[in-house]
Amino acid sequence: MTRNWLKILAVVAAVVVAGPASLAALDGFRGTGDLGIVIERGSGSVQIFETTARTRLAQVKGLGDLSHASAVFSRDGRYAFVFGRDGGLSKIDILAGKLVKRILQAGNSIGGAISQDGSLVAVSNYKPGGVRVFNSHTLEPVADIPAVYGSGGELSKVVGLVDAPGQRFVFSLYDAGEIWIADMSVPSRPVITKYKNIGELPYDALITDDGRYYIAGLFGEDGMAMLDLWKPEKGVRRIMDGYGRGEKKLPVYKMPHLEGWARAGDLIFLPAVGRHEVLVVEPKTWKEVGRIPVHGQPIFAVARPDGRQVWVNFAHPRNDTVQVIDTESLKIIHEFKPGKAVLHLEFTPRGEQVWISVRDADRVDVYDTRTFKRLQTLIANKPSGIFLTARANRIGL
Amino acid sequence: MTRNWLKILAVVAAVVVAGPASLAALDGFRGTGDLGIVIERGSGSVQIFETTARTRLAQVKGLGDLSHASAVFSRDGRYAFVFGRDGGLSKIDILAGKLVKRILQAGNSIGGAISQDGSLVAVSNYKPGGVRVFNSHTLEPVADIPAVYGSGGELSKVVGLVDAPGQRFVFSLYDAGEIWIADMSVPSRPVITKYKNIGELPYDALITDDGRYYIAGLFGEDGMAMLDLWKPEKGVRRIMDGYGRGEKKLPVYKMPHLEGWARAGDLIFLPAVGRHEVLVVEPKTWKEVGRIPVHGQPIFAVARPDGRQVWVNFAHPRNDTVQVIDTESLKIIHEFKPGKAVLHLEFTPRGEQVWISVRDADRVDVYDTRTFKRLQTLIANKPSGIFLTARANRIGL
Repeated sequence: MTRNWLKILAVVAAVVVAGPASLAALDGFRGTGDLGIVIERGSGSVQIFETTARTRLAQVKGLGDLSHASAVFSRDGRYAFVFGRDGGLSKIDILAGKLVKRILQAGNSIGGAISQDGSLVAVSNYKPGGVRVFNSHTLEPVADIPAVYGSGGELSKVVGLVDAPGQRFVFSLYDAGEIWIADMSVPSRPVITKYKNIGELPYDALITDDGRYYIAGLFGEDGMAMLDLWKPEKGVRRIMDGYGRGEKKLPVYKMPHLEGWARAGDLIFLPAVGRHEVLVVEPKTWKEVGRIPVHGQPIFAVARPDGRQVWVNFAHPRNDTVQVIDTESLKIIHEFKPGKAVLHLEFTPRGEQVWISVRDADRVDVYDTRTFKRLQTLIANKPSGIFLTARANRIGL
Repeated sequence: MTRNWLKILAVVAAVVVAGPASLAALDGFRGTGDLGIVIERGSGSVQIFETTARTRLAQVKGLGDLSHASAVFSRDGRYAFVFGRDGGLSKIDILAGKLVKRILQAGNSIGGAISQDGSLVAVSNYKPGGVRVFNSHTLEPVADIPAVYGSGGELSKVVGLVDAPGQRFVFSLYDAGEIWIADMSVPSRPVITKYKNIGELPYDALITDDGRYYIAGLFGEDGMAMLDLWKPEKGVRRIMDGYGRGEKKLPVYKMPHLEGWARAGDLIFLPAVGRHEVLVVEPKTWKEVGRIPVHGQPIFAVARPDGRQVWVNFAHPRNDTVQVIDTESLKIIHEFKPGKAVLHLEFTPRGEQVWISVRDADRVDVYDTRTFKRLQTLIANKPSGIFLTARANRIGL
């Protein structure tokens, strides 16, 4: 009997130590620095992977409608917060490979952010229009910021929500044409600063990687709205006036993602709207200094972390192709066709690999960014956004 | 008997799950994104801490002479590689809180680096002069690069070793006045590119955060040597000629650390040598555009990750003070005295906290970078360098 118990003891201990088989090393430990997730639209799930041996680790299901889903990470790299289109906010333990909690916080939402100190998760909602803020530990509600505008108490859809230094969130009101800053220093009492008349129909926004400049794209006008968060008293000013948005010569198949902006060396690269071009902008003056003809309407234009290359994917029907721009020569140095519906690109933080989701091929491909060779392929169910835990260490992601 | 066994089983399982008491949460998992280590010179140990609740987690001893020690991290954030002055290279499992392996790889060394893909750890040695490269998994030797120069086969001390994109290491030969690039694409057969006559006595170097510019300080001349790694064929050129190094009007108590450079917005901040000044440099032209008078001879001038502030510490005998420079106004906006012998400063990756080691007070203090309030104090044995796992995600650290 004693011997049997010892056997059971050994088995139990081994199982306990190992956790979910593939997730932790045999001694029960695993670092989180090389982990990531890919959204699987087809199955309402995320797949967890690691970038060292480039293997799949686990799948977490039951996350609802994940079309246009995105994610942020806890400051310790252990938890992913996934924002679904259906208003779902899911907290996933990527080390344990399981769903910790899921709430339906609104009827229709469009992304989120995590505060500088990691304590607050904010979601931007279409319905009801506004931002809701949750405790990142418990997902309990902390603050509700309805996007009220005008005189009739209407609520605006909210887009372009980002975190900024100083425990702030910044976001744009699509219907109202406003930019708001929410200072969350006292979490239950957000201090809101509103900028009105910033331009018509801001549809998305970006924040520079130092957290200084917040820039909203305008669907209703031919220009962008820029707020210098170091000088908020100066207000919002128009930049890139007449940059081509208003020409409307080509049908716009899909609005580009402004989060897919790229700073490389002294230049910023932005996907043009509705045109087969990537815009080159000089960030000191915010003037356009060049345009690079590309294969289709660009969706994401993402800089390799060292800034030497910008990788671009495209809107339907030209979405089977990726082009690589050299940021010194501004020439396209490589082009390839990973497959139908290339939806997203994510670099490892030091830039040696890029992970690419190919939705219609049900594949995530990993490429060496120097040789352009494919290193690995993972099977995934209609993969879209790819997010690495390294984002936890970045401002504005 | 069965009941007793159940009790034992429960206890064993609990211990196994918890691992070293403070290191893992009760379910055996812990993310590594918020971990860090501080070098304890007094006891030849490192202390492991986390930055969320700001608590000490463990101490790892037996690391030899840790004066002037530094560290890099594995790409998964689990392991720290500590470079000791005595030639010791220690691999620490920071999740388990234990020393995995320690080798004495040389007689006298001065820092190291980890390759872009995380597979190689390189150490720069004074004695025997050169660089030795090890497998990061096993610490087995992979390549030996003796710093041979001149006609007599002498070996030069090696300083300023950094990693660069493309699986390269870059370093300077102090005695030879050379800069070498080692391409480690085939680890056992490094391809070395040598730049000779770069200037007298390079004593330290920095690489910009995009991995493009490698800049060596020259002890023997009044200028710095710069290599553009995007245009290596152009060779090394002299920058900041006559910037004041050669005036020698003040005794130099301690050479500044060039790794303690700071890019903030469009400017670079460098500690002056031997002068009570921080130099402001315009990185497009590499010309000095200003000098900021400070409290003493600066050692580190480190940018808060959003670039809005630069924090400066000083050489003996003025090393009890820290000053904070606002990078917009170039004015000192805050000054305080943490205690005697402030040796190092490390920001959390999104900049809300700064960790400061106060050697002679045996303290590590944590400050809120917005309010300048002290948030926490940890006891440490003659603390010096502080290193957070977020460095694993950065180029050149």
